[in-house]
Amino acid sequence: MSERIQPRVLKGFRDFLPTDEIQRRDVIHNLEDVFRRFGFAPIDTPMLEYTEILLGKAGGETEKQVYRFEDHGGRDVAMRFDLTVPFARFMAQHRNELTLPFKRYHIAKVFRGENTQRGRYREFMQCDFDVVGTDSASADLEIILMIVRSLEALGLSGFHVRISNRAVFNRFLRHLEISEHSEEILRTVDKLRKVGTDKTRSALAELVGIDRADQILSFVQPSASKLSASVPGAATENQRILAHMRELAGGEGEDTERISAILEHAASVRLTERIVLDPSITRGLDYYTGMVFETFLDDEEGIGSICSGGRYNDLASLYTKEQLPGVGASIGVDRLLAALGAERGASRSADVMVLYLDDSLLGRYHAIADEIRRAGFRCEVYPEAKKLPQQFKFAERKGIPAAVICGPDEAAQDLVNVKNLTTRDSHDRLAMPEAVHHIRRIVADTAAASLEGSPEAG
Amino acid sequence: MSERIQPRVLKGFRDFLPTDEIQRRDVIHNLEDVFRRFGFAPIDTPMLEYTEILLGKAGGETEKQVYRFEDHGGRDVAMRFDLTVPFARFMAQHRNELTLPFKRYHIAKVFRGENTQRGRYREFMQCDFDVVGTDSASADLEIILMIVRSLEALGLSGFHVRISNRAVFNRFLRHLEISEHSEEILRTVDKLRKVGTDKTRSALAELVGIDRADQILSFVQPSASKLSASVPGAATENQRILAHMRELAGGEGEDTERISAILEHAASVRLTERIVLDPSITRGLDYYTGMVFETFLDDEEGIGSICSGGRYNDLASLYTKEQLPGVGASIGVDRLLAALGAERGASRSADVMVLYLDDSLLGRYHAIADEIRRAGFRCEVYPEAKKLPQQFKFAERKGIPAAVICGPDEAAQDLVNVKNLTTRDSHDRLAMPEAVHHIRRIVADTAAASLEGSPEAG
Repeated sequence: MSERIQPRVLKGFRDFLPTDEIQRRDVIHNLEDVFRRFGFAPIDTPMLEYTEILLGKAGGETEKQVYRFEDHGGRDVAMRFDLTVPFARFMAQHRNELTLPFKRYHIAKVFRGENTQRGRYREFMQCDFDVVGTDSASADLEIILMIVRSLEALGLSGFHVRISNRAVFNRFLRHLEISEHSEEILRTVDKLRKVGTDKTRSALAELVGIDRADQILSFVQPSASKLSASVPGAATENQRILAHMRELAGGEGEDTERISAILEHAASVRLTERIVLDPSITRGLDYYTGMVFETFLDDEEGIGSICSGGRYNDLASLYTKEQLPGVGASIGVDRLLAALGAERGASRSADVMVLYLDDSLLGRYHAIADEIRRAGFRCEVYPEAKKLPQQFKFAERKGIPAAVICGPDEAAQDLVNVKNLTTRDSHDRLAMPEAVHHIRRIVADTAAASLEGSPEAG
Repeated sequence: MSERIQPRVLKGFRDFLPTDEIQRRDVIHNLEDVFRRFGFAPIDTPMLEYTEILLGKAGGETEKQVYRFEDHGGRDVAMRFDLTVPFARFMAQHRNELTLPFKRYHIAKVFRGENTQRGRYREFMQCDFDVVGTDSASADLEIILMIVRSLEALGLSGFHVRISNRAVFNRFLRHLEISEHSEEILRTVDKLRKVGTDKTRSALAELVGIDRADQILSFVQPSASKLSASVPGAATENQRILAHMRELAGGEGEDTERISAILEHAASVRLTERIVLDPSITRGLDYYTGMVFETFLDDEEGIGSICSGGRYNDLASLYTKEQLPGVGASIGVDRLLAALGAERGASRSADVMVLYLDDSLLGRYHAIADEIRRAGFRCEVYPEAKKLPQQFKFAERKGIPAAVICGPDEAAQDLVNVKNLTTRDSHDRLAMPEAVHHIRRIVADTAAASLEGSPEAG
């Protein structure tokens, strides 16, 4: 025997074992189901592209992180580091095959040679969705609505989408005559939540002086007294903040009217409670030109935004002269999975196990399992005639709640026994329709018991 | 404006536009649904691994095809070229976290720098499933059953799984005293279907002489007269072929008994008509030690096997001293999609489109769509107040069968109009429950019409 190779994965890369992978795939299927209901269609693009395509737009930091090499044909190629750049290339290349406005989603892996000491992975899943080819307020609202319905479909209830508008912020900066620093200011304000007010104030002061720094802070963090002064009477908090933004940006404009429209029509789709107007949301990227947003879980703000995005006016300018405005969002699948961490009970691989007592009944066991599957359950057959305690232990380890037992006596009469593996109750000598009935009860009881035991219930 | 970059993908790589990607994802979801019903659990492994891990087992041809490079940390890394090698590494590494027998599936992309002139892609989807940790006949039968149920779930009916047994073939070669050439013989016989009998005969003759070549051919292609002689009476074709194999391999053995057991118990799960015992099935790889099989569509043998695999006695010997026997299969997703090519009608992105007549009703349109989605339909909102003919044309291009129209008059009374975009019939001034009722009828009528028009029906 030759020397063995140590089995291991690269730093920053992960294997997904069944429990984690079942949860990840179930979450992705739930998201896709919502996206498809909204009429968004999936696309896919290659994992590997010409480096020129992927890095055309990127700065130094991205370039250092990208997995780049020369292929067998001497081409300079790279593994994709996000789904936005390939989407821009896709839209430029296939514009004539697509009907605009185009609604797509893309759930796939991306790769970044990040410093793993910050707890980041080098391979991770991204989930992006966009409406391209329209400037409309309807598309803005639709993206927010789809985020809300997606998170609700995953069983989340305590979350808010914090929105702002980059055009209003830019107008405010022009008003202060500090537009030439807008990129650095955006990036600085974007970190406010992470680093706190004091550090942000110092950083801004270095850029534009302490007076301007304080004006920026009072724009992005309006004080309560300021707000109540700006709109008298029964206005909502969002309306007060909008009035504050309007005032500091130099009055009404298309950009503030757009915020008004979104807030007004959000009420029709019962989104009012979900949306918080928050002028401190800027998103770091220069790319956004209108609405921007981030989504936070009320109880777990610490894990950061689980869905961010915004409106841009020119998706694919690097590859085409056609202007493609749009609005889109990206769900952080890893963060979402972290937030859903508690609900692991659902990730068992099967509802029912058929025990294996006798080789002569091998085909019978598979026929029983086939019938249970047709009734809608997940059912596996233990594959060989090991001792019963060993088979029961196998089912227990895998969290399988029901077992079907059939020896030669039962088989001769077309009957089976059904055992509840939690309570150890057994129902013997049942015809298959009765057996399925008992399995249905066992599965339902187990689901109810697991709900009672979960911290979400009550 | 800086110079634009030409949008293009690398040779051998593909974008998937909505029609194709919807079909691909639907097929994968259907397969996963069947796999999960059988109690198989998904896993995932990294796209990138140490080259040493991936190439440890591979020969020169694979090495030339693999995408390999040095990462930022100076590691020799490669993109996976199949899912079998990473699975072997996975089992060796996580053996103690898993419960054996372990049933897993893995659907993911792999990469090979193949010569694209043969119509091959450099990035493609693989779909593997295995039962590891048992030698049992039950697991052999289960894999065949799961293949059959998977293809049935995709609407395929005319297909057969052709099985043989590598151990019987090896015994036959020992009997002929030509075991030392077994690898080359296997690979030569594996190409029989592609290159024909004459070329195979010459190739075998070069290896072992013309007499032995003819003996091998008469083993793998038993003549009808030979078969009817070997088992008299009412035996099935499969039983006759088994008798023929048994005779030429030197009598009954564990290997022929295993074939007997599979054929016998297949009857219990109504698989008898699906399984064809075919001694010419050898699979090229040295790795298999027991049952081997390939799956062909009756009407499209030309596209080759759409699902192949077999039993092996030692999955992970490169990485661990623990012996892990198992049985597994791989579905060729691209071939399957080619076979399903005709059924594209189902891949529309939405069932219903809500037209956009008036900006003041923006929120109302999204509320109507939300209600239609809750009733189980895919519904999109046209995003802006373009002229109606343009909106209808958009729906038509996307194959959307139903439209909902709501102007200020209807909105004032909480009513909508529903239009069948195929027949142009319209039902006006409906409350939402009635509207949903009409949508259900339109969608059902469209599905029925598309079935009538399909070549599969009738």
